[in-house]
Amino acid sequence: MTNKVKIAIDAMGGENSPDKILDGIEISLKTSKDNFFYLYGKEDLLKNKILKKKEISKFCEIINAEDVILDDESPLSGAKKSKKTSMWKAVESLKEKETDISLSAGNTGALLVISRVLLKTINGISKPALAALWPNQTNMNIVLDLGANIECNEKNLTDFACMGSALYKSLFSNNIPKIALLNVGLEEYKGNDILKKTFNILKENKMKNFDFKGYIEGNHIMDGDIDVVVTDGFTGNIALKTAEGTATFIQNNLKKSLNIFSMFFSYNSLKKFKDKLDPRKYNGAIFLGLQAPVVKSHGATDAIGFAHSINVCNKIVKANLIEKIETNLITVNA
Amino acid sequence: MTNKVKIAIDAMGGENSPDKILDGIEISLKTSKDNFFYLYGKEDLLKNKILKKKEISKFCEIINAEDVILDDESPLSGAKKSKKTSMWKAVESLKEKETDISLSAGNTGALLVISRVLLKTINGISKPALAALWPNQTNMNIVLDLGANIECNEKNLTDFACMGSALYKSLFSNNIPKIALLNVGLEEYKGNDILKKTFNILKENKMKNFDFKGYIEGNHIMDGDIDVVVTDGFTGNIALKTAEGTATFIQNNLKKSLNIFSMFFSYNSLKKFKDKLDPRKYNGAIFLGLQAPVVKSHGATDAIGFAHSINVCNKIVKANLIEKIETNLITVNA
Repeated sequence: MTNKVKIAIDAMGGENSPDKILDGIEISLKTSKDNFFYLYGKEDLLKNKILKKKEISKFCEIINAEDVILDDESPLSGAKKSKKTSMWKAVESLKEKETDISLSAGNTGALLVISRVLLKTINGISKPALAALWPNQTNMNIVLDLGANIECNEKNLTDFACMGSALYKSLFSNNIPKIALLNVGLEEYKGNDILKKTFNILKENKMKNFDFKGYIEGNHIMDGDIDVVVTDGFTGNIALKTAEGTATFIQNNLKKSLNIFSMFFSYNSLKKFKDKLDPRKYNGAIFLGLQAPVVKSHGATDAIGFAHSINVCNKIVKANLIEKIETNLITVNA
Repeated sequence: MTNKVKIAIDAMGGENSPDKILDGIEISLKTSKDNFFYLYGKEDLLKNKILKKKEISKFCEIINAEDVILDDESPLSGAKKSKKTSMWKAVESLKEKETDISLSAGNTGALLVISRVLLKTINGISKPALAALWPNQTNMNIVLDLGANIECNEKNLTDFACMGSALYKSLFSNNIPKIALLNVGLEEYKGNDILKKTFNILKENKMKNFDFKGYIEGNHIMDGDIDVVVTDGFTGNIALKTAEGTATFIQNNLKKSLNIFSMFFSYNSLKKFKDKLDPRKYNGAIFLGLQAPVVKSHGATDAIGFAHSINVCNKIVKANLIEKIETNLITVNA
């Protein structure tokens, strides 16, 4: 067990929990036995459920947490609620280094607040950021911040570039990531003052940890030419949700247009199409900049989506993400 | 001719101009003979082309303009270039009230600068805004600003709400439009200070020209519940382009997934799907807040897309958009 990745899971957060959490663990164990799960939640309930899933019980330890933060609670009320919640206890275990990484499908706002309260930021980082995975024509890229910080200055955006490139290396490839700033045009004079200042910092610094490619516009995020897209949390949140809304809109229209006959003949093609775009594969936003990694699984995802988040957690710990971020920051500040 | 809508067209702007412009006029004349076109551009060239299209010649007058603003020129260099350009002359005709509305598929930035230089703003408006049409589950809605103003205060956003609702009424329906502010969440405490101030202005004012529905998130822009989505030009530009990029990404993946066999059997369904989402139908951004309306057709659109823009121009003039905006503003400022 000592060599396994120790994942602290808020077993009560998100729709259909804890069932989807336990099913997700079961799915992940089919491909890897490399993780050990600390399940925070109502002990009796979890024990009963696990009795029926004997094959996962030897990879899990249950830690009782009497209370649960609801998905629709305000972040502050949720965070204040009590230190007895499953989310609080899961994150707290990182502080004592009992676990390596924490994973929750619960209330995003509360998770950000609790993580900020319990965990210190990495030396030099003032604002942690939420990063997500986006599908693109070749594989996936990372976009950050997605809503942790509504307003950001050039120092914050520069930090995001360092953290995002460390995450990209941890998850996908050890090649030097290509980074760009999200803007309304490609020319240097475009955008607001903060973007222009960040552009100059990233351009002037002879970075070796990432390759700064200038600005990127919204219509090119998914082209696959850029690995890490940096933006403030307001813009990133709008971009992410607009992309989600557009995908839903198009897929609904496609469904409406297909009759039973054409659906029958296109079954395999459509399945391939859906598989490629399956949002469960891109499930898992990562809260970066704290001294331990915290991963947010989508509240509405199912067991397969949750299993993908477990896989993301494993990669992050194995790749020493926090160390990679620290190294990147030293280079920037030097 | 006196009762026709007089459209001043920059015949040289955009890809494949002037051919697509003339073809677009030809297409529009098949459904309506309600417009008269003033074509600004190289006289000899246009005359030669029109000789081959006799059926459109009685609906057109050519006005010579020696110079052309290139699509990739910087807005300022384009605008400064000369008063002899087709774009400048087309917009200038509005100033003298020789024409009712101006339409260009050329350089967007230059069109905004030229329009601001030549035309006064509507009394009470300090920042004109660029509005676009978005497809949604039921029909179309309007989003503004899309990039004319990178930074906006609460007064600007309130003006955008008034102008957007006037445009919605002009194009689609005389019902009271439902308006919302684009934000990262629905709760009143979400977003930045300017959004909160705008929220309070729109909430406190007992508007009769539109129905304020609070905040909207990016994933609901296309649901069809909101008619006018208000945002600053930076956020609107990122949202629009991200939606475009997502649509392209999904359609490319769909194409890749379909084999010839399934394409054959799904031909009609896919055609219906493509028709519904055809971007040419949503072609035409409208520059609002000036004392005359200026419409921007997408530079890369074809003749069918340009014909759609002509149709938008006709509706705007027939519905007295400028008067509608003035009425809305009086109500807000009262």
